[in-house]
Amino acid sequence: MKSGRLEAFSDGVLAIVITIMVLEMKAPEDTSFEGLLTVLPTFTSYLLSFIYLGIYWNNHHHLMQATEKVNGAILWANLHLLFWLSLIPFATSWLGENHTASLPVALYGFILLMSAIAYRILEIALIKHHGKQHLLQKAINKGKKEIISTLSYVISIPLAFLNSWLSLACIVFVAILWIVPERNLENLLKEKTP
Amino acid sequence: MKSGRLEAFSDGVLAIVITIMVLEMKAPEDTSFEGLLTVLPTFTSYLLSFIYLGIYWNNHHHLMQATEKVNGAILWANLHLLFWLSLIPFATSWLGENHTASLPVALYGFILLMSAIAYRILEIALIKHHGKQHLLQKAINKGKKEIISTLSYVISIPLAFLNSWLSLACIVFVAILWIVPERNLENLLKEKTP
Amino acid sequence: MKSGRLEAFSDGVLAIVITIMVLEMKAPEDTSFEGLLTVLPTFTSYLLSFIYLGIYWNNHHHLMQATEKVNGAILWANLHLLFWLSLIPFATSWLGENHTASLPVALYGFILLMSAIAYRILEIALIKHHGKQHLLQKAINKGKKEIISTLSYVISIPLAFLNSWLSLACIVFVAILWIVPERNLENLLKEKTP
Amino acid sequence: MKSGRLEAFSDGVLAIVITIMVLEMKAPEDTSFEGLLTVLPTFTSYLLSFIYLGIYWNNHHHLMQATEKVNGAILWANLHLLFWLSLIPFATSWLGENHTASLPVALYGFILLMSAIAYRILEIALIKHHGKQHLLQKAINKGKKEIISTLSYVISIPLAFLNSWLSLACIVFVAILWIVPERNLENLLKEKTP
Repeated sequence: MKSGRLEAFSDGVLAIVITIMVLEMKAPEDTSFEGLLTVLPTFTSYLLSFIYLGIYWNNHHHLMQATEKVNGAILWANLHLLFWLSLIPFATSWLGENHTASLPVALYGFILLMSAIAYRILEIALIKHHGKQHLLQKAINKGKKEIISTLSYVISIPLAFLNSWLSLACIVFVAILWIVPERNLENLLKEKTP
Repeated sequence: MKSGRLEAFSDGVLAIVITIMVLEMKAPEDTSFEGLLTVLPTFTSYLLSFIYLGIYWNNHHHLMQATEKVNGAILWANLHLLFWLSLIPFATSWLGENHTASLPVALYGFILLMSAIAYRILEIALIKHHGKQHLLQKAINKGKKEIISTLSYVISIPLAFLNSWLSLACIVFVAILWIVPERNLENLLKEKTP
Repeated sequence: MKSGRLEAFSDGVLAIVITIMVLEMKAPEDTSFEGLLTVLPTFTSYLLSFIYLGIYWNNHHHLMQATEKVNGAILWANLHLLFWLSLIPFATSWLGENHTASLPVALYGFILLMSAIAYRILEIALIKHHGKQHLLQKAINKGKKEIISTLSYVISIPLAFLNSWLSLACIVFVAILWIVPERNLENLLKEKTP
Repeated sequence: MKSGRLEAFSDGVLAIVITIMVLEMKAPEDTSFEGLLTVLPTFTSYLLSFIYLGIYWNNHHHLMQATEKVNGAILWANLHLLFWLSLIPFATSWLGENHTASLPVALYGFILLMSAIAYRILEIALIKHHGKQHLLQKAINKGKKEIISTLSYVISIPLAFLNSWLSLACIVFVAILWIVPERNLENLLKEKTP
């Protein structure tokens, strides 16, 4: 099986997930600057989630670039990832309304952790199907970024109940870490197709 | 006619249907664990419908993989399937708010039954257009899963008025049955493209 | 310019338009049959609009099948068509809540009329770009269906203020007329690619 | 890396952004002409934003037509553009409810300005990746339209606090300016592929 339709469906779901979050930003009743400022917490949550979904789309794009074939296990691993990502709008909406409350921050961290695990499962399913010698294997297991991210998510969850701002700082830190594009995989792909 | 655009449109509709259901999960007012628990029934309905739509996308993907050409009847059979699937968010929302009530469970089972019938009609339209000798025919008529699923849906509807939990169990059972990927069709396709 | 991306964007918009209408079908508070029946008018409006958007997607698909190249005028003619089609969810929602009121029925007919005109403009833009000798020209100007449809829409608008049921009957009649697939264009395409 | 999936994802986001705005047009309670007229301000805002998003889709389509390869910087520049465009529904909704208020008009102008800057950044990232000798470079830097548009947006923001109608006139003027298709780029592309 070709990977084209899996990409198209993932693109569709990610495009919708990234966009429907904006529906949470309700136009304020008041047309003053104070009115506009009431949208600020929702806006910052939206910005954070937009960046996270952008990172996932970006990495998914890189991963699929190196993918040639797809099987049933990969289709389900991909749907599993999309499921956790589809919960981001819910977590974003709750976070946007309660920036300083512990549980919304912890839930946000938890959903990011589950998404990271789901992404890892997808990677494993892809490697299993393509063989250990394949380019994919070389490209995926390079980074320490995955380990640092996962640790940060794990820490952010209990931390939210101690200090929600520190917990959010963990989450923002991971986002910044990932905005730097995945040079390794890109370079490897360049070597492959000179 | 090529089947590419039919797949793209179906992907679009399925991606939207699977994603807009999450809009039903409203962020709770309360930031306590009790507040979060109020979302649980909506969440489990969402999970169930996500899995069902994932199954349909998966099977649709397999079916179209074996499809080469498309005609007007197939286009309409496909739209008919998408129509019933597009009603799943409505049924999910009603079920999420009333897990133990009979009618929402029966409606959910009814829409799944109609989707299964619509899928069967699409299969018949595809076989008719490709010819009985075609790979498609061999691949489609293998499973007993279709018969078991359809029977389970048929039973789940009256059962909902006797015991809504047993009725839901029928529906969950079919979902589990289908998460196991359609090996038959996959193997047949593998034989075709060695 | 190739027509691929125009089709992809149109598919995206049509898939969203056809799907977001279902958001208007709110889960009833009441879990009785009477409760479910309150959704019936919204459901029938949704069904009607789903069929109309299905017809447009179908015909658009056929039209683009015969299209080879695209220019700026065609891009805008296509966006113009999508604009009127994007108003269908609004008209559907108003109609669903007020089946017997004149103005919602008239507005529904008006938006269908404008969509039909926009579709005709798109056809003209396509013919102009491809030349009169092109297959497209032969395929498009066959039907009397276009004339009957347009007349029916024109009649349905004033008729809504006399008898809204008769006006709706006009609109339903056109939908039935179009569900029969466009054999002419299909046959012509078959001749082209034997 | 190929640009195909970037286009598909952008198409998806733009298709959703352009369509969800219609959800803001709520069906009026009243079925009289007066009732329908209450939707008029929301409708005109929708029309304006539909045209702007149509322009962006159109120009993005032209730009990508001349693009051959894509890197990480381009992916993020594109996401940055999509972020600002995704805020248009919010700005449209606020504008639709408060046509004559200063701040909603200024915010609308500001988001258009940021979108224009994001588009320029995307162009720069594309030129940097393709080389100055490339067709893209020749095609992009022709127009005075970009400069006039950017100036109009810059002016529209403070102007909104003096006279919101004049400010809106600036914004409408830019939209009219761009509906005329980008002949230059089209002609250049025609030369390239005779």
